Amino acid sequence: MKRGRKMKRSERLVDFTNYLLNNARKLTTLSFFGQRYGVAKSSISEDLVIIKRVFEETGVGTVKTYPGVSGGVVFTPEISNAQSRAIVSEIADLMRESNRILPGGYIYLSDILGSPKNLKNISKIIAHEYAGKQIDAIVTIATKGIPIAQAVSAILDVPFVIVRRDPKVTEGATLNVNYMSGSSAKVENMTLSKRSLAPGQRVLIVDDFMKGGGTLNGMKSLVHEFDCILAGVAVFAEGPFKGQRLITDYKSILKIEKIDIEKRSIEVALGNIYTNEV
Amino acid sequence: MKRGRKMKRSERLVDFTNYLLNNARKLTTLSFFGQRYGVAKSSISEDLVIIKRVFEETGVGTVKTYPGVSGGVVFTPEISNAQSRAIVSEIADLMRESNRILPGGYIYLSDILGSPKNLKNISKIIAHEYAGKQIDAIVTIATKGIPIAQAVSAILDVPFVIVRRDPKVTEGATLNVNYMSGSSAKVENMTLSKRSLAPGQRVLIVDDFMKGGGTLNGMKSLVHEFDCILAGVAVFAEGPFKGQRLITDYKSILKIEKIDIEKRSIEVALGNIYTNEV
Repeated sequence: MKRGRKMKRSERLVDFTNYLLNNARKLTTLSFFGQRYGVAKSSISEDLVIIKRVFEETGVGTVKTYPGVSGGVVFTPEISNAQSRAIVSEIADLMRESNRILPGGYIYLSDILGSPKNLKNISKIIAHEYAGKQIDAIVTIATKGIPIAQAVSAILDVPFVIVRRDPKVTEGATLNVNYMSGSSAKVENMTLSKRSLAPGQRVLIVDDFMKGGGTLNGMKSLVHEFDCILAGVAVFAEGPFKGQRLITDYKSILKIEKIDIEKRSIEVALGNIYTNEV
Repeated sequence: MKRGRKMKRSERLVDFTNYLLNNARKLTTLSFFGQRYGVAKSSISEDLVIIKRVFEETGVGTVKTYPGVSGGVVFTPEISNAQSRAIVSEIADLMRESNRILPGGYIYLSDILGSPKNLKNISKIIAHEYAGKQIDAIVTIATKGIPIAQAVSAILDVPFVIVRRDPKVTEGATLNVNYMSGSSAKVENMTLSKRSLAPGQRVLIVDDFMKGGGTLNGMKSLVHEFDCILAGVAVFAEGPFKGQRLITDYKSILKIEKIDIEKRSIEVALGNIYTNEV
């Protein structure tokens, strides 16, 4: 940023707010801001008190200051339990619309997952679940998992990588695993570019929909084959499934309890993010 | 937002800045802010003068106030020509890395297009190109176009829809078109859920890479079949292509001039967004 003049406090607060919102989860030293605004660190600290108070009162997020040479300030976007439940009940209402039921009992979700507002909200909820954990990359599978994975990646500011069902010439060398589809008990294949992940990275798996958990399980073994560490598995919605799921350690935002094709009704409940709460 | 007390101006500026950044391109009445903060419209106008000055000086965007009953304030994110060129030259440097060349002369781009920072930057440039135009939806094709389309959709706050090469059971009824691949001169098929677009919508087509333009041309005819209006075609990069392209009215951020597999070198130039400037 180039400026010819020194900002007043009121102006500084506008710029400071914008800076923090655009640099979420990053530690920035107070000296950086001191230089940026040409003021003493004490003024920066006073500004931060104001911003912290407003961000916390309005539920935008937390502002934490760490002392010392390697210290600084970190803004972390937050979502309150009430906000989270309000968002999820709004999306659940959308999912209950009877015209979503497709032949074969599938549910049309593309409009919900093609809305930037929904994606932002869904990804805030997922990011919140992993707020305390270190995550280095998001892994998803083409096609429908991509929007959610990308939205979470934007919030956590880490890259996302896309697993495919068939290798593409534009991916270079790939690592492939076979997996058993949980719902149809067929052996399938998934593939990920060898360059996508580095050994030791902490990986969050994200997908749109889970039935038997076979696809998620496949991604888990792929993460393992890359010598990465699984940080978590999150899905937007879990569907009805009879029998033993191939995966148990997942988090879901919504749970589709029942799809009645004849009555054209979809029963949607909160996912285990909400129901497993203490 | 629930607050028990009235905010001071300094606090109001923090909240006001956050509000505008999170409600880009939307008209909000001054009365809304008057009520939100419990102050007279004149105070709101004074706040806006400060925010406008900072946003414009630091290149964040424009803040426009419209008078009258149906008036209000609109924040539009902006990117200056200098910022845009700085971003694009950074990404061009990444693309020139020799280890991106894959067998067959393909280029590995997944890491570039899996980085939230790059996607935000790329989408700012594309959104800027269509700043004055009304756009109701973004259309892209699976898989690699999705991240860019989604990032542009987030900035313009409009939905995005994903064309597929083969219909999926979760999409319901689809509209299909055949198209001629520009590079291989084969007839291919693409498909889009009938529910995706409504007649009369103004559509921006976005993709990651263009060679002969066949895929983009296919999307153009799909948009036409939906009785939608084409608002533009934007690609991240255009590749080298000998002969007549099937499409001429596109905008590109980068242009790959030459890929020398033997020397392992990639010549990358600015796209027509920059070179067609007056």
